[in-house]
Amino acid sequence: MGTLVVAQSGGPTAVMNASLVGAIAGARGDRRVDRILGARFGIEGILADDYVDLTELPTEALVALKETPGAGLGSSRYRASDTEIHRIVSALVARDASWLLTIGGNDTADTLHRIQLAAQDAGLPLSVVGIPKTIDNDLPGMDHCPGYGSAARYVAVAVREAGIDTCAMQRTDPVKIVEVMGRNAGWLAAAARLGRHEPDQAPQLVFFPERPRSVEQMVDEIAGAYRAHGWAVVVVSENQTDEAGRPLAGDQPVHIDPHGHRYNESPGAHLARLVQSTFGVRARYERPGSLQRTSTTIVSETDAIEARLAGVDAVKRALRGESDVMVAIQREPGLAYSVRYEATPLSEIAARERHLPDEFIASSGTDVTDAFLAYVRPLIGGSLPPILSLV
Amino acid sequence: MGTLVVAQSGGPTAVMNASLVGAIAGARGDRRVDRILGARFGIEGILADDYVDLTELPTEALVALKETPGAGLGSSRYRASDTEIHRIVSALVARDASWLLTIGGNDTADTLHRIQLAAQDAGLPLSVVGIPKTIDNDLPGMDHCPGYGSAARYVAVAVREAGIDTCAMQRTDPVKIVEVMGRNAGWLAAAARLGRHEPDQAPQLVFFPERPRSVEQMVDEIAGAYRAHGWAVVVVSENQTDEAGRPLAGDQPVHIDPHGHRYNESPGAHLARLVQSTFGVRARYERPGSLQRTSTTIVSETDAIEARLAGVDAVKRALRGESDVMVAIQREPGLAYSVRYEATPLSEIAARERHLPDEFIASSGTDVTDAFLAYVRPLIGGSLPPILSLV
Repeated sequence: MGTLVVAQSGGPTAVMNASLVGAIAGARGDRRVDRILGARFGIEGILADDYVDLTELPTEALVALKETPGAGLGSSRYRASDTEIHRIVSALVARDASWLLTIGGNDTADTLHRIQLAAQDAGLPLSVVGIPKTIDNDLPGMDHCPGYGSAARYVAVAVREAGIDTCAMQRTDPVKIVEVMGRNAGWLAAAARLGRHEPDQAPQLVFFPERPRSVEQMVDEIAGAYRAHGWAVVVVSENQTDEAGRPLAGDQPVHIDPHGHRYNESPGAHLARLVQSTFGVRARYERPGSLQRTSTTIVSETDAIEARLAGVDAVKRALRGESDVMVAIQREPGLAYSVRYEATPLSEIAARERHLPDEFIASSGTDVTDAFLAYVRPLIGGSLPPILSLV
Repeated sequence: MGTLVVAQSGGPTAVMNASLVGAIAGARGDRRVDRILGARFGIEGILADDYVDLTELPTEALVALKETPGAGLGSSRYRASDTEIHRIVSALVARDASWLLTIGGNDTADTLHRIQLAAQDAGLPLSVVGIPKTIDNDLPGMDHCPGYGSAARYVAVAVREAGIDTCAMQRTDPVKIVEVMGRNAGWLAAAARLGRHEPDQAPQLVFFPERPRSVEQMVDEIAGAYRAHGWAVVVVSENQTDEAGRPLAGDQPVHIDPHGHRYNESPGAHLARLVQSTFGVRARYERPGSLQRTSTTIVSETDAIEARLAGVDAVKRALRGESDVMVAIQREPGLAYSVRYEATPLSEIAARERHLPDEFIASSGTDVTDAFLAYVRPLIGGSLPPILSLV
């Protein structure tokens, strides 16, 4: 008998609450759990003893929660000091917690691993299990991450819509830069290609963090796409760098988070200005920002189901004594898409990033391969609705 | 017997093609029309004799077109010279056109009015009817404009999602600025309030072009909202100015279109930078840009139906000889929402803008009134789906 503590951490996703609901449902189904506490704002809630009691949350609330994007418990990017890690362990013991689940990404894996080591040092029986979550899809040790499929669908839809708009407005506003998230990996940028079925559809160019290039080359490539098609939609990743590793809009980050991640001036705005001044056609830029990770209307059903089942699986593992791991979704071999839920040691995920592999990037460096499309298609939950152009 | 020419003009909307489909359906239903030609890229298509023959467009194509946002025929912001206006009239006569319909806004009304006068001068029988279209909702002489309801729904949904995200991330990223379209009118910014039901939901502040204020005051108001709620989502209009009428991010437009409209550096990015440097908390900004006018997933059903019927109504008017008018949707009095289709002279719409009236803006200058909410609610096609927060 004991308490299960669950928390959410890092940037929200559209299906992060589905994992929370899965964990609650899994824990309710086991007699060993007599209390389920949700920490508000990740480890900050544990440190402040600030919890929501989820044990008796009514079914209607669970249903609404599952449909709500974002982190229902509140999230955190707080980086705990070693002293605080020990305080977290004591606080959990004081709450009679036997199991700690956290829905998060690479930074969360790092924190959970440190909590696990501290509990072990203190000789305390605590099972620590991570539930994977990131729109960036950059966690090692798994086929893909819950949250990515929905954000990938959002990016595919949004870039296709940007294409519909730009194609119609090509006589006055022929170039559009769409800046997408993804931190240092091109997984989300690559997903933009899902909306393109013909060469003259959007996006004509995708820039990947894995293929840094000089700003001059990027502007030349945009000019080439514009000349070839009469208009161009270009996708650029929020942290795109030039060939020397410098952020496009300069080396002064606008923000550095507690985990040392740097947030830069908009590369999309910078590229749009350059295109306009260099070859004299109007270039606009869009920056859907957090909308791509918190959409209520664009969600991959596949992603939502997998996120929930990852939550259920994490409870099972914690209750049978597994610890220091994160649930990992692995794809079964074969033509039909199916997955199994395994576990990957936290130390293999902690503070590490998985980039887009070479076989997923076309030789041009500005397109994806068929292998990537085959990888990503099952994740976005069905094809996009048909559209028609008379231009 | 004769040819009906239809064109699309100005910035696209989610339901602009619904109006096109309405016009095609209306024209097909009348024996006097023996040919329906769609001009590619607005009047540029008429000048270049570049048409799509829509007379026999298959039903499946019409269905797909109605579901596709944007301007299926291509759009234009081209401003015709007086000589070109005369060339347009000759080109229409050469094509045996008796009726010209154009789906557009204030600039389109201006162009259509000039075409009408030129045809009249030349003694040519041409019926010229506008079909209203703008997400900005700034056309005089009508209750509201097709395109606004869908964009208003998009803004309401997107700002609510920005709120879900910011509330969850309030410990690290507590302020978010969402920059919305709307040109010089606050109709779209105001629609952001549809997602807020409690005072501690997003948006905590809305800045309207109709209530210019100093940048210092705006930053103070944002700081106040942040202190009151622990986080704040702030909506700002793309052309927000300070109290002296200067664009927030400076007086140098990045673009001036052929109709003289000025496009400025992002006020959202500027405000975010100021908030961050002035009171030291992280402020992000989102700029959904054209996504708010070309969404496939967020469309107001009411708006789509009205847009289609406006197209049908325009054909009826043109065929019975009405000219120099734009269809105008008027709201019937009474509690239940219903509309009728009237006509407003083009000269009353041409190059004029309707701003948000005083009775729709709260005395604070950063919120709307209940009268506005009562006005806008029926336009967005049903309430937003429920969400749940545990914070």
